[in-house]
Amino acid sequence: MSIAIQEELAAYCRDVARRAKQAAAELAQARGEQKNAWLRQSARRLREQTDRILQANAVDLAAASQHGLTDAQIDRLRLNPKRIEEMAIGLEEVAALPDPVGEIIESSVRPNGLEVMKVRVPLGVVFFIYESRPNVTADAAAICVKSGNAVILRGGKEAAASSQVLVEILQQGLIEQGLPENALHYVQTPDRAAVGHFLSLAEYIDVAIPRGGESLIRRVAAEARMPVIKHFTGNCHVYVDATADLEMAERLTINAKCQRMGVCNACESLLVHVAVAEAFLPRIGVALRARGIELRADERSRALLGEEGVRPATEEDYAAEFLGPILSVKVVDTLDEAIEHINRYGSHHTDAIVTQDLASARRFAARVDSSAVMINASTRFNDGYQFGLGAEIGISTDKFHARGPCGLKELMTYKWVVYGEGHCRE
Amino acid sequence: MSIAIQEELAAYCRDVARRAKQAAAELAQARGEQKNAWLRQSARRLREQTDRILQANAVDLAAASQHGLTDAQIDRLRLNPKRIEEMAIGLEEVAALPDPVGEIIESSVRPNGLEVMKVRVPLGVVFFIYESRPNVTADAAAICVKSGNAVILRGGKEAAASSQVLVEILQQGLIEQGLPENALHYVQTPDRAAVGHFLSLAEYIDVAIPRGGESLIRRVAAEARMPVIKHFTGNCHVYVDATADLEMAERLTINAKCQRMGVCNACESLLVHVAVAEAFLPRIGVALRARGIELRADERSRALLGEEGVRPATEEDYAAEFLGPILSVKVVDTLDEAIEHINRYGSHHTDAIVTQDLASARRFAARVDSSAVMINASTRFNDGYQFGLGAEIGISTDKFHARGPCGLKELMTYKWVVYGEGHCRE
Repeated sequence: MSIAIQEELAAYCRDVARRAKQAAAELAQARGEQKNAWLRQSARRLREQTDRILQANAVDLAAASQHGLTDAQIDRLRLNPKRIEEMAIGLEEVAALPDPVGEIIESSVRPNGLEVMKVRVPLGVVFFIYESRPNVTADAAAICVKSGNAVILRGGKEAAASSQVLVEILQQGLIEQGLPENALHYVQTPDRAAVGHFLSLAEYIDVAIPRGGESLIRRVAAEARMPVIKHFTGNCHVYVDATADLEMAERLTINAKCQRMGVCNACESLLVHVAVAEAFLPRIGVALRARGIELRADERSRALLGEEGVRPATEEDYAAEFLGPILSVKVVDTLDEAIEHINRYGSHHTDAIVTQDLASARRFAARVDSSAVMINASTRFNDGYQFGLGAEIGISTDKFHARGPCGLKELMTYKWVVYGEGHCRE
Repeated sequence: MSIAIQEELAAYCRDVARRAKQAAAELAQARGEQKNAWLRQSARRLREQTDRILQANAVDLAAASQHGLTDAQIDRLRLNPKRIEEMAIGLEEVAALPDPVGEIIESSVRPNGLEVMKVRVPLGVVFFIYESRPNVTADAAAICVKSGNAVILRGGKEAAASSQVLVEILQQGLIEQGLPENALHYVQTPDRAAVGHFLSLAEYIDVAIPRGGESLIRRVAAEARMPVIKHFTGNCHVYVDATADLEMAERLTINAKCQRMGVCNACESLLVHVAVAEAFLPRIGVALRARGIELRADERSRALLGEEGVRPATEEDYAAEFLGPILSVKVVDTLDEAIEHINRYGSHHTDAIVTQDLASARRFAARVDSSAVMINASTRFNDGYQFGLGAEIGISTDKFHARGPCGLKELMTYKWVVYGEGHCRE
């Protein structure tokens, strides 16, 4: 790349970021009714322009094999009228959420009469880097703008044509509703250097959110000069306690493992208390293998699962996020052994216990250090929609600022607003 | 430094951090009564061991000139029975705060019956790097432990002897109350390389908090592999609106500027609406100059302040945190010009308006992008004690995670705890 082109790219990125920052200041003051009207109007336009969206999507699909996408990736890229309708409904659901801007989170009147309020305000500008799923474009734009943030979208090149049309449709309504047109940017250049430029612009961009492979996230975390909300792996566990209802345990394990395997909140490891191992492992083994799941287990589990076709589990297996039809299995002697195993090998994402014992449930919930702890519920519920946050922009594996599903509030900060009557400090 | 010594230092830091992480897991489960008993017992011990503390402090004071401390720094380093009593009271005040660990911040029952709770939990291990004020040692230890976090304290070498004794006193009670002894570490080596080692240990340390000069904070932010809560400069403003009560405006301006000049929430810049400039500037000029404050002003202000002895203000003056007896002054034509000036030149720390107009107050509060916005109150109130947070570990100038005074909650995160009855995802 010539120096002139490099400089042009840097200037383009700086200009986009600067305009986003200006728009953010204005957007932070917009009324909820403006933002909601924009969301509902955009939903209508998505429906009306279904043909146009599908034409653009066809361009992406035609180039998919050239980009080396797998069948699963092509499936996620593919739009159809039903998926466009779901996108439209998604926008309407975000419109229906209460406006979070200006909410008083806490307040107190101090003994001297000073009124102290902690008020929720937008972060400012979000830089969102994501994989090739067009529906993510609509979701991200919706929750960023609803939370009062300008957003710079950097989608995968595999969905470039689809995303471009979706963003055009979303941008149309901004000016009509009196919202700043620069609230929503789609980075068009395929040049990967653009990401580096944006990550250097901390004076304009308040948070970077990478979603995709681990190498992308590590690169963004290393390069960014602004805070990053990271979404790393999900090595999630189901632990079947000594008092578990084994029928429930079977259902939950199968749901957590098999309902959707390529996602971060799918189960990757099954721990079974020794007291129920003999009763539970043979039946779950049959059920999982009937669904094509390969088991990798410790010696005690293998003895109960039938050693044929069950490989001994390695340390790496216990630490792995398989994202596919493999499950590691282990028998534990105590609840605390399960908790220690999860905290050691897990990725602090989502872990479930199946138990009928109150003390076990409370101890597991308190001591498992994960973004979500499920008691008698599938790991698959760790999700913004399922938690009632509306849409989500990702599931944070950080402990800082945002943990677990990131909806509107997770894209926000607060300011202190203090009313006095001429108060001076002694 | 030889390689052997470097390796020894790295191993020491790693060992401290690892033990702190273990202690943090235990401390997160400690009961409030254990932590509060420790705080109150420590307060008693500080009082009982006043002589021992003063002897250690005398060692630091004797070495102060050797370290090149200014008179103001020596004053902050100096302990006396009154200041030790204040430290003890500080611990008792933290003991009196509600325990934040386990608080349910939000909850909902989803339509499918799933009970979703967002529960406040400690971050884990805090690495705190701070200047040479011994009382900060006690404050930081108190709020870290109360919020369920282990803490690694790295105090300035100028207060090493005093801090060492204070930490010994605080550590004594940990085991007696059944709290993990590794919850509280004081880094003894004067070797600055130790800071670098700790900043690399993201697997053990959850947040780094540097407090001190800008170069220290920049170094920590650049090197840290974990999140950092930063505390940069405070270029704070008082804006006197067209409808201000001028007597109140004079009191507030003097309080904000003069009550304590070397602190981050002191006023550095005065903006005056043109409608009251003629009435206000001459009187505030007299009052400020009587207190030894040098004024640097724009031409319109100089004409009203009397040009002799009032230097023309430069761009740098408007951007400066003087931390001393200098104030920049400017006349503005509108409220919005004041807001724009503050957002452009300020440091987003603390900014005040003096006004009797409701719309002005609301517009200023909404549009000034600062950690704290004061309406008819001095900038000096941006402080954890004043806001009712109890002690504070600093005032964050970040917009992410924590903004403004950092008390107990700002050292915490949350986890999602979900109760079901065998819920599976469709």
